[in-house]
Amino acid sequence: MKPDNTMKNLKYLPLNRLHIDDAFWNRYTALVTGKILPYQYRTLNDLLPDAEPSHSVHNLRVAAGLEEGTFQGYVFQDTDVAKWLEAVAYSLSYEPDPQLEQTADEMIRLIGQAQEENGYLDTYFSILHPGKQFCNLKEGHELYTAGHFIEAAVAYYQVTGKTEFLKIMCACADNICRVFHQPEYQDAVPGHEEIELALCKLADATGNESYRQMALEFINRRGCSDYLSREHTLERYVDVWHDRNPYLPEYGQAHAPVREQSTAEGHAVRALYLYSAMADLALAYGDTSLLDACRRLYDNITQKRMYITGGVGSSGTLERFTTNYDLPNDTNYSESCASIALAMFCLRMARMTGEARYMDTAELALMNTVLSGVAQDGERFFYVNPLEVIPSACMPATDKAHVKPVRQKWFGCACCPPNIARTLASLGTYIFFQGEDSVWVNLYISGRYEAELSGVPVVVQMDSHLPYHGLATVTVTASRPVRGRLLLRVPDYAEHLQVTQGGQPVSLPVEKGYAVLPVEGTQCQVQLRFQMPARLIYADPRVAADAGKCAVKKGPLVYCLEEADNGANLAGLWIDPERPLTERWDDSLPGGGAMAVTGEGWGLCWESDTLYSTQMPRPAPCRLRFVPYFLWGNREEGEMSVWVRYGSGTEFSARGFPAP
Amino acid sequence: MKPDNTMKNLKYLPLNRLHIDDAFWNRYTALVTGKILPYQYRTLNDLLPDAEPSHSVHNLRVAAGLEEGTFQGYVFQDTDVAKWLEAVAYSLSYEPDPQLEQTADEMIRLIGQAQEENGYLDTYFSILHPGKQFCNLKEGHELYTAGHFIEAAVAYYQVTGKTEFLKIMCACADNICRVFHQPEYQDAVPGHEEIELALCKLADATGNESYRQMALEFINRRGCSDYLSREHTLERYVDVWHDRNPYLPEYGQAHAPVREQSTAEGHAVRALYLYSAMADLALAYGDTSLLDACRRLYDNITQKRMYITGGVGSSGTLERFTTNYDLPNDTNYSESCASIALAMFCLRMARMTGEARYMDTAELALMNTVLSGVAQDGERFFYVNPLEVIPSACMPATDKAHVKPVRQKWFGCACCPPNIARTLASLGTYIFFQGEDSVWVNLYISGRYEAELSGVPVVVQMDSHLPYHGLATVTVTASRPVRGRLLLRVPDYAEHLQVTQGGQPVSLPVEKGYAVLPVEGTQCQVQLRFQMPARLIYADPRVAADAGKCAVKKGPLVYCLEEADNGANLAGLWIDPERPLTERWDDSLPGGGAMAVTGEGWGLCWESDTLYSTQMPRPAPCRLRFVPYFLWGNREEGEMSVWVRYGSGTEFSARGFPAP
Repeated sequence: MKPDNTMKNLKYLPLNRLHIDDAFWNRYTALVTGKILPYQYRTLNDLLPDAEPSHSVHNLRVAAGLEEGTFQGYVFQDTDVAKWLEAVAYSLSYEPDPQLEQTADEMIRLIGQAQEENGYLDTYFSILHPGKQFCNLKEGHELYTAGHFIEAAVAYYQVTGKTEFLKIMCACADNICRVFHQPEYQDAVPGHEEIELALCKLADATGNESYRQMALEFINRRGCSDYLSREHTLERYVDVWHDRNPYLPEYGQAHAPVREQSTAEGHAVRALYLYSAMADLALAYGDTSLLDACRRLYDNITQKRMYITGGVGSSGTLERFTTNYDLPNDTNYSESCASIALAMFCLRMARMTGEARYMDTAELALMNTVLSGVAQDGERFFYVNPLEVIPSACMPATDKAHVKPVRQKWFGCACCPPNIARTLASLGTYIFFQGEDSVWVNLYISGRYEAELSGVPVVVQMDSHLPYHGLATVTVTASRPVRGRLLLRVPDYAEHLQVTQGGQPVSLPVEKGYAVLPVEGTQCQVQLRFQMPARLIYADPRVAADAGKCAVKKGPLVYCLEEADNGANLAGLWIDPERPLTERWDDSLPGGGAMAVTGEGWGLCWESDTLYSTQMPRPAPCRLRFVPYFLWGNREEGEMSVWVRYGSGTEFSARGFPAP
Repeated sequence: MKPDNTMKNLKYLPLNRLHIDDAFWNRYTALVTGKILPYQYRTLNDLLPDAEPSHSVHNLRVAAGLEEGTFQGYVFQDTDVAKWLEAVAYSLSYEPDPQLEQTADEMIRLIGQAQEENGYLDTYFSILHPGKQFCNLKEGHELYTAGHFIEAAVAYYQVTGKTEFLKIMCACADNICRVFHQPEYQDAVPGHEEIELALCKLADATGNESYRQMALEFINRRGCSDYLSREHTLERYVDVWHDRNPYLPEYGQAHAPVREQSTAEGHAVRALYLYSAMADLALAYGDTSLLDACRRLYDNITQKRMYITGGVGSSGTLERFTTNYDLPNDTNYSESCASIALAMFCLRMARMTGEARYMDTAELALMNTVLSGVAQDGERFFYVNPLEVIPSACMPATDKAHVKPVRQKWFGCACCPPNIARTLASLGTYIFFQGEDSVWVNLYISGRYEAELSGVPVVVQMDSHLPYHGLATVTVTASRPVRGRLLLRVPDYAEHLQVTQGGQPVSLPVEKGYAVLPVEGTQCQVQLRFQMPARLIYADPRVAADAGKCAVKKGPLVYCLEEADNGANLAGLWIDPERPLTERWDDSLPGGGAMAVTGEGWGLCWESDTLYSTQMPRPAPCRLRFVPYFLWGNREEGEMSVWVRYGSGTEFSARGFPAP
């Protein structure tokens, strides 16, 4: 069947019209302003004694000539500041803080001082290779860094109305457009994508379409030349990482023209930032060949290469996608940033197509892998999000060195913590789309939101009991009579959906996963009620790591076993799929409590004194207690596993062999 | 219980008194002489057009001044030649070949020409850093290389009686003894152990005990100083690998004095070459504290860190041991060389203690992981020996890049192929020990062997049906009446052992796993008959990768599933542990046929069109066909798995919960 390639013209709602007030999410928005942003500010300024230093403010000050010293940290260290500023901007939309805004203004001034005359901005090259620019696109990360600064500048402008940062970044973008239209850069592309989606945002914010054209140019060039493979032979090349390996085109999605790509390849964050820009550009230019590629890539990811948690990137080596069904649980990367990028891509796909399934995936990624990335105290972070951990095996200098059994204070390469902060602070973006005569509800998050219906300002009040209960009330109030539509996402996990108005069931057509409710007059209230009991989920057995196992999922939340509840040796547990799962709220769980799920099964008892034996382990009945995956590792260090073996015998009842 | 630390004074039988003529092993001894040695000779001389070049003869010729050019290959490239010469020496003991011997003599002459005046021998340093020696013990591999040359020289002397090579290596060893007794080397130790066991062999061959003293000194120093950690700060240091990581003492077993070590740590080959030398020295000096350490290390390996195949080294990163019960099947290293080293260590332990369990492990390693290392055509090799392979997932530049689904022609770092050759060519060493009044039979391999009983020459004729049938006849014939004992290993897999003489059952005492048969007169014949049906083997469930799974083992042979017999998606198969396993000889299997084993179970059918689903996969009855692990990968490329899920329901019959 040919997909419907009619593109919607849906818009995001501006953040300062969105006022989240939700029992589940308030702790995260408060965590951002109360803990993460102040904590990260101290980190950027190297004020945390027992965490890895960031050096990023130091680098800006050196580049600005305000401090002696040299560049320290990774080549992309500036982006820590950029993402922090972006998160600050979003946070000011829901919690104005003049002092924080002043701090941000000072940081922006510093960035301006660190910028070169021609608009170039990147402290690594300004300090270590003055006068050089864009001499190592493969790993130099200048365009990636510029992209993050642009995203921050656009956010700061949109929330505060201040233009200084935006001007700085327009000058930077203008320089990029100049350089990359020169003949010697005619087939040059960024090694780490990000600039493309940032230039789209900058075009939207400024109305200057040349930025979008540059983004389109980058997208069109990718995979059409061997620039990244031969860059090291150019005279202008500056070595950054001393990587003696030849460039792997798939690593940077440069193995084929983007419109011909059908499988998600290479570095997961790079890939998903690219796909996000492809979606932006498909919509902006009505480019259905780009849309088709985006659909194929989305399908490949979600049907062949994504963890049940919305994690992506199966290989720690090169932080990359590997191949179909290769989803190991204990050595995977599943970087927090990659799930953020997946949510970004899905949001754009939903916006362009009006298909709810993309929001199912965005929600999955956000509520499991992204939330898992930050500790409940807001001061520790996961970079890698495994689905199975035995702490003793996560040894340095082994194949599992990248897997950490506990969240870390900060990282030398700290892309994830500030990325999580900016994502949580801009959560509102995911909740709605604004159509011409319609408001689309993607996520059921309680709060008060200002939108428009057919040009008339409306207030949308949401009262949601997600993620633990399938109950949400949506009230639309208009200042004057309106005519329009409310589109309500029906989550893929919703069972027995009932929509009622004034207590009376109403039957609504469902279009591409959105229930469509006509709105007339000045007020409209609708209630959605659905079941979402904890369910056992199975994986396609071609996923070798999950065959013979199942996972527990309740609504959008994936669950896991932890040693704190189940003792050690989680691998020796079996769940009986015939026994019911029971749910019970537990106030004592981290993060203000959560719904725990209990199943029944067996634990293997080993009665031999050797490592291997002909004697089958004896199963002893036991209860298995599951907690939400996003909360794991918030108690004492211990084992964790999402997937658990299942068995009871009746699954084999159709034996097919004569009895012995 | 305190172990019996009385040391035996058992000896190896000289190879030229051992004449293997065995239905199973003949093809391997013939493979060595007919295929592997000629093939490897061509490789050493870079005569194979489509394999990675070895450069090792080229390097010797450059060092000898016979050829222009520079050093190429790895720093330890010389050892390819050393191990080839060692294998040649052994092969000449069972298949004299004047032309091959002449080629070897020429190679030895070349080695002599490449040797420096002071006895130093290492083409890497002689060519690239002339005048420098022992300036990078951490990774320079000079002592490792010298050790392999010494082993080859001793072998060549023992088999041919020629002394030229031995003299060359005595000069080399004398230089080592000189240097490493200088004050500035007083706490220096080899980075890669090997020289220690080689010096013990050289002492045995020459009667010069100073070599063994040097070996003891190296062992005693290890772990007592930080030489390897601080070596890079010494003025004489020469960088080899540009490794910017700080030295990890465990990597080279330098984290603690060897007598205090209780867990196998670091690089697996380094560790097991060290332990082998520790066993040699424990016996030579009657050092029970070394013996105790060896016992602890053996127990740790075999009870916590060894694969069912006798593979060791769980991490591809650093080719190393990791931690207890960390035995992943699809990312492990289990280097062929490490299992060779394990067999070497176990042989020494058995020789010292007279305990058969050590030979059980040696046999396991030899017959599974070591034999798996070489293709049935003798021209392709495994370096890494996984227990589970999905070819599509073994991608370059990912976490599984080191795992190859098919044997490779040659390797840039080619330690394994010649190591396998020398091991197969010296298989005879493993078959017997010679006691003062006793002959010990370790392995039941058909052939005609010359030994002594109480000083009287005897011929031991063996007629064995292993490894597929538990039946062996041993006949001892003496030239004049003797009184002595024949000790017959009772393998750990032997069930219902029956020993008969002249058709009459005899009851023999079993001491430490050896059945003790008194021998009197000029002839004695005994027959051993035991059952060794294919059995399901389970692992301690603390091995997360194997929990809920079982493996098939028949006698010494571990079995596996291959795609060629079972189709793809082996992970989706379950075996029913209640159904009998059947065995059938299959002539069509590689290597002249083998016993195949068939079980019954189920294959999971996925009836959803999504990656994850609430719908449990439907099990469809099927037969599972297992073939010996050592034969895997000799048919078309495909999946392989040693461990298979089990389930039928009756294992959960003691449910412990009331019915729903």
